[in-house]
Amino acid sequence: MNPTEQSAAVEDQEAPVQPLNAAKPESDVAIGSLFVDKVKAEKSAVEKEPEAFRQAVANILERRSFYNPSFDIYGGVAGLLDYGPSGRLVELNVLSLWRKYFVNEEDMLEVGCSALTPEIVFNASGHVKKFTDLMVKDEITGAFHRADHLIKGYCERRKKDVSISAEKAAEFDNLLAAVEDLSAEELGAKIKEYGITAPHTNNPLSHPPRPFNLMFQTSIGPTGSALGYLRPETAQGIFVNFKNYYNDNGRKLPFAVAQVGRVFRNEISPRQGPIRAREFLLAEIEHFVDPENKSHPKFPDVESLELLMFPREEQEMSGQSAKKLCLGEAVANGTVNSETLGYFIGRVYLFLVCLGIDKERLRFRQHKAKEMAHYAADCWDAEIDCSYGWIECVGIADRSAYDLLAHSKKSGVALEAEAKLAEPIEVEKLIFTPAKKELGLAFKGDQKNVVEALKALNEQEAMKMKATLESKGEVEFEVCTLGKNVTIKKDMVSISKEKKLVFERVFTPSVVEPSFGIGRIIYCMYEHCFSTRLSKAGDQQLNVFRFSPLVAPIKCTVFPLVQNQQFEEATKVISKQLKSDGIKHKIDITGTSIGKKYARADELGVPFAITVDSQTSVTIRDRDSRDQVRVSLKEVASVVTSMAEGKKTWQEVCGRLNV
Amino acid sequence: MNPTEQSAAVEDQEAPVQPLNAAKPESDVAIGSLFVDKVKAEKSAVEKEPEAFRQAVANILERRSFYNPSFDIYGGVAGLLDYGPSGRLVELNVLSLWRKYFVNEEDMLEVGCSALTPEIVFNASGHVKKFTDLMVKDEITGAFHRADHLIKGYCERRKKDVSISAEKAAEFDNLLAAVEDLSAEELGAKIKEYGITAPHTNNPLSHPPRPFNLMFQTSIGPTGSALGYLRPETAQGIFVNFKNYYNDNGRKLPFAVAQVGRVFRNEISPRQGPIRAREFLLAEIEHFVDPENKSHPKFPDVESLELLMFPREEQEMSGQSAKKLCLGEAVANGTVNSETLGYFIGRVYLFLVCLGIDKERLRFRQHKAKEMAHYAADCWDAEIDCSYGWIECVGIADRSAYDLLAHSKKSGVALEAEAKLAEPIEVEKLIFTPAKKELGLAFKGDQKNVVEALKALNEQEAMKMKATLESKGEVEFEVCTLGKNVTIKKDMVSISKEKKLVFERVFTPSVVEPSFGIGRIIYCMYEHCFSTRLSKAGDQQLNVFRFSPLVAPIKCTVFPLVQNQQFEEATKVISKQLKSDGIKHKIDITGTSIGKKYARADELGVPFAITVDSQTSVTIRDRDSRDQVRVSLKEVASVVTSMAEGKKTWQEVCGRLNV
Repeated sequence: MNPTEQSAAVEDQEAPVQPLNAAKPESDVAIGSLFVDKVKAEKSAVEKEPEAFRQAVANILERRSFYNPSFDIYGGVAGLLDYGPSGRLVELNVLSLWRKYFVNEEDMLEVGCSALTPEIVFNASGHVKKFTDLMVKDEITGAFHRADHLIKGYCERRKKDVSISAEKAAEFDNLLAAVEDLSAEELGAKIKEYGITAPHTNNPLSHPPRPFNLMFQTSIGPTGSALGYLRPETAQGIFVNFKNYYNDNGRKLPFAVAQVGRVFRNEISPRQGPIRAREFLLAEIEHFVDPENKSHPKFPDVESLELLMFPREEQEMSGQSAKKLCLGEAVANGTVNSETLGYFIGRVYLFLVCLGIDKERLRFRQHKAKEMAHYAADCWDAEIDCSYGWIECVGIADRSAYDLLAHSKKSGVALEAEAKLAEPIEVEKLIFTPAKKELGLAFKGDQKNVVEALKALNEQEAMKMKATLESKGEVEFEVCTLGKNVTIKKDMVSISKEKKLVFERVFTPSVVEPSFGIGRIIYCMYEHCFSTRLSKAGDQQLNVFRFSPLVAPIKCTVFPLVQNQQFEEATKVISKQLKSDGIKHKIDITGTSIGKKYARADELGVPFAITVDSQTSVTIRDRDSRDQVRVSLKEVASVVTSMAEGKKTWQEVCGRLNV
Repeated sequence: MNPTEQSAAVEDQEAPVQPLNAAKPESDVAIGSLFVDKVKAEKSAVEKEPEAFRQAVANILERRSFYNPSFDIYGGVAGLLDYGPSGRLVELNVLSLWRKYFVNEEDMLEVGCSALTPEIVFNASGHVKKFTDLMVKDEITGAFHRADHLIKGYCERRKKDVSISAEKAAEFDNLLAAVEDLSAEELGAKIKEYGITAPHTNNPLSHPPRPFNLMFQTSIGPTGSALGYLRPETAQGIFVNFKNYYNDNGRKLPFAVAQVGRVFRNEISPRQGPIRAREFLLAEIEHFVDPENKSHPKFPDVESLELLMFPREEQEMSGQSAKKLCLGEAVANGTVNSETLGYFIGRVYLFLVCLGIDKERLRFRQHKAKEMAHYAADCWDAEIDCSYGWIECVGIADRSAYDLLAHSKKSGVALEAEAKLAEPIEVEKLIFTPAKKELGLAFKGDQKNVVEALKALNEQEAMKMKATLESKGEVEFEVCTLGKNVTIKKDMVSISKEKKLVFERVFTPSVVEPSFGIGRIIYCMYEHCFSTRLSKAGDQQLNVFRFSPLVAPIKCTVFPLVQNQQFEEATKVISKQLKSDGIKHKIDITGTSIGKKYARADELGVPFAITVDSQTSVTIRDRDSRDQVRVSLKEVASVVTSMAEGKKTWQEVCGRLNV
């Protein structure tokens, strides 16, 4: 290629090339802010047409292999998605960032528990009884629908009708805000009142709505008799192993256990792509803490953050929305119930913003009293605004001691922690002594279960048993782990009270649980990172995913400007170095123009492109500014690696720093 | 602390401290080899008592939180294990090394597909009919047992009886080698012949053995009518998406798709801890290749490897065992059926050895003709010798075009690739033209499925249909995706043959599948890395896991030699730097002696320990050699990081290199 050809080809790269280490021209700043303005203008335009925007994003996500419906060649299954090569890389990158922000930063213990779970565990946790949605049936086709979704859809459609009165509109608004808290009867009454029928068919609906358990059921083992479920959350695996993890942490509180894993929920009518799926990835943290001391040593690191918060009182007043609050103040004035909860709110905020979530479209909404589980002390959802509205992406709940107590009671195994008292105190203590010989003779192989169940009695229960044994000589006693009652006789146990000096306080820890819906977070990030811009010639709208280099599935593309042996050799050298640094990249040797290659890479969110246009130096082009710098062949891989790993920014590389 | 105290304390660290960058004393080499000899001697001792050895390893693995039985507080569930903090870190490290060795090195596409799978997929793949084990029932208790396991156990027990004849012993040997290939009738006959009864109870067993499907069943959606299974392997998710991935790869062969994910198998009688679990992690690669060209460009990289191989002919001769073969020769003489299969055998070997698997206890065993699936072209298992015997840890199979053809046929969607012909050829080609209007009128919403099914007809089937249409005017036609027959009339399709110049060959790719049982590999690695050695005082046997730094859950411990503010500050500086490098480490400030701290770290397989014994420099101690070097506070973190990431060895750091 002669010099004229080369410069024409480089011209095709859309922006003038500046040498590395040169001062950045002042005009660039202006161009940069101009560009940002244009993006904002576009964003508000797509916000006016959320469905068209969503469809545009979804098309690219499918076409560029972020995800696709599972089992598509068989017609697909609602609620199941497969992550393609781009989507899986994003997921792995997000998880790696999550580990950095939470597991490593807080020295958490990460574990991996079974998804298959025996029934007894979810009986104890309450999921068998309560993990349900209310559904109604199309009386003719037999199709099922979620009652609250039907009412929501109805209200949203009716609200668009300009002819309705202001009162009616307010009624729909109030119902929309409260629909998730309504009982089966209340939902049924609303469906009747509004004359809501089945979607698509307009057939009548069954009445009243009935609860449907969202857990997938299966049986474990060949007999078919051992009922099991697929976990709908990862947390229970952590709670039942509490004793092990507490020991691993040197029997000290607070400490946190983290788990990333697939969970399964048999949604009645899955929809909204990755937002409501039947199988998805959760990343959960169970932070165990002394209920008498929920302070957090690192809270000062986040207390000055100002973020959009929506406390429950504000939600109950109409016309209110989330407001910027200072996290430190929100904890100090009791809006957030503890430093620990506040600390996690702050860390979740920083994590999401680092991923590329727009902080103006991220709010922390407190659960209303009715919405919160009866045992919860406080609960805040990180909600992200996207084309589907505000979506719950992270739940941050203070679950008190509920879960550990529930499993302790059901299993008969104490799940407790201890803390040294400042001063020893004298207490009346229950002394429970099993008579091994008598128990052994009576219960043989069941002895261990019986003794554990007896030991799990609280003081009141034990004293009641003592009274019955003294009056009647024996007592019926339920052993949950055996699934039956046994008869305890007077000679089998001795129960008494003694005064004792106690040096430790024994208690059930509270749990603060941040639970991350990874698929939802990633989907919202896709929407927030998506933008369009005009091609250089001004004749085409080009798609750009403005992924952070840390999250982008491919960090860099490498194009030999023309196909010749020297450029191919140089391309190989760069690629080999990038591979050894673990940097995902693509080599594009198709015959299309550089402009088209850039467009293709921009659409995939590739932050950097290397054009090999000489044997000794190459140009790097930045996706967002479309600026270029020239770098020597020797240093190009390390420059790209440092930006891909978030150690340097483009601005730092461009002009100011020696790399 | 005064200098005398300090030197006494450092003395407690078991080995003299040598300065960094000093030449390594010659005596070290001798000490090193002496040590290895001792380990070998110990190893052969434990091999004599595999059960005692296994129990010793298992105790440490549970105590140090590598894994524990799931739902232990409820009595556990056979076949389910939870990975604790140490085990999960090892798993993540192994996966990261796996990605480096396979996904990144070969530019594979990594994907993540659903575990929940509708029935039709496993009908197509053959799993609903054939993914079974043969089981017998204890006629009195109703407990189920695998028929082949009972016979295996019987033969193994009887073989230990020294009074049996040589013929009888040979009979048991032959049966052990063939038991997995026996039919239900043959297994039943052997059980009767030997009078085998149920384990533990000695009750009679049901006859003949019956097949039991190992897939967990569930139903998807609220109606209960959509039968689904949990995937027993990840591969099918990849096959059904073949078209997408082929497009992602620019419609070029060969290419590989990788997937790491949990799979579920409802084992009849799970046992052997992590070896036969009901839920476990598979890492699978589906390498798609032109069946007419299974050469591999990188085969020369592995062809000179010599590894233990056990071809099927050798297995059929009695008294043979695996022999060292050169991989290049094994491919050249047809023992291994293709370069691609050979390449993966070589890469699997390198990966496993890098993990810490003893190469003398790793063999590649070819499947015998009867053992191999009917469609497979060749299959080799990487088997690792452990206390349970030789365990299949990686299966490397050439599955031919079986899977893609099966899904193509069932779904009516062509799963094919094309390759440019060197010269265009003239062929008689089937021309199939659907009459859209007539098909639309007749089938409405089903039209798409009908057309796809018609298009999937092969030439012979299409010509038969043409003949029937011409003679009878209509034909019954099965549309699998609709689950019913439809009537095709003459005016709905036109079928003819035309001569055409063809430039491309269209074909169904072959699949070479390396499939890694991650839990089994890790378990075998635990056994191979485990050793014991005498304490310095010679009074105690100490446990050591000799994990590679890449795999070790914790890379480094940090001990302040005594508790004072200066040492604590220095400890914080080191810890902060290690954390920012992403190096997992533990700080041990318990009051025990340095010797005990080392012992505790050795048992967890921590490769390096930093003792903070001054404010300016510290000592690093190597777990395996127990040697120490002194390093400045400033550089200690980067020295440990470079070793933990496998960039430098202890030998390189010690003495020879400037770090």
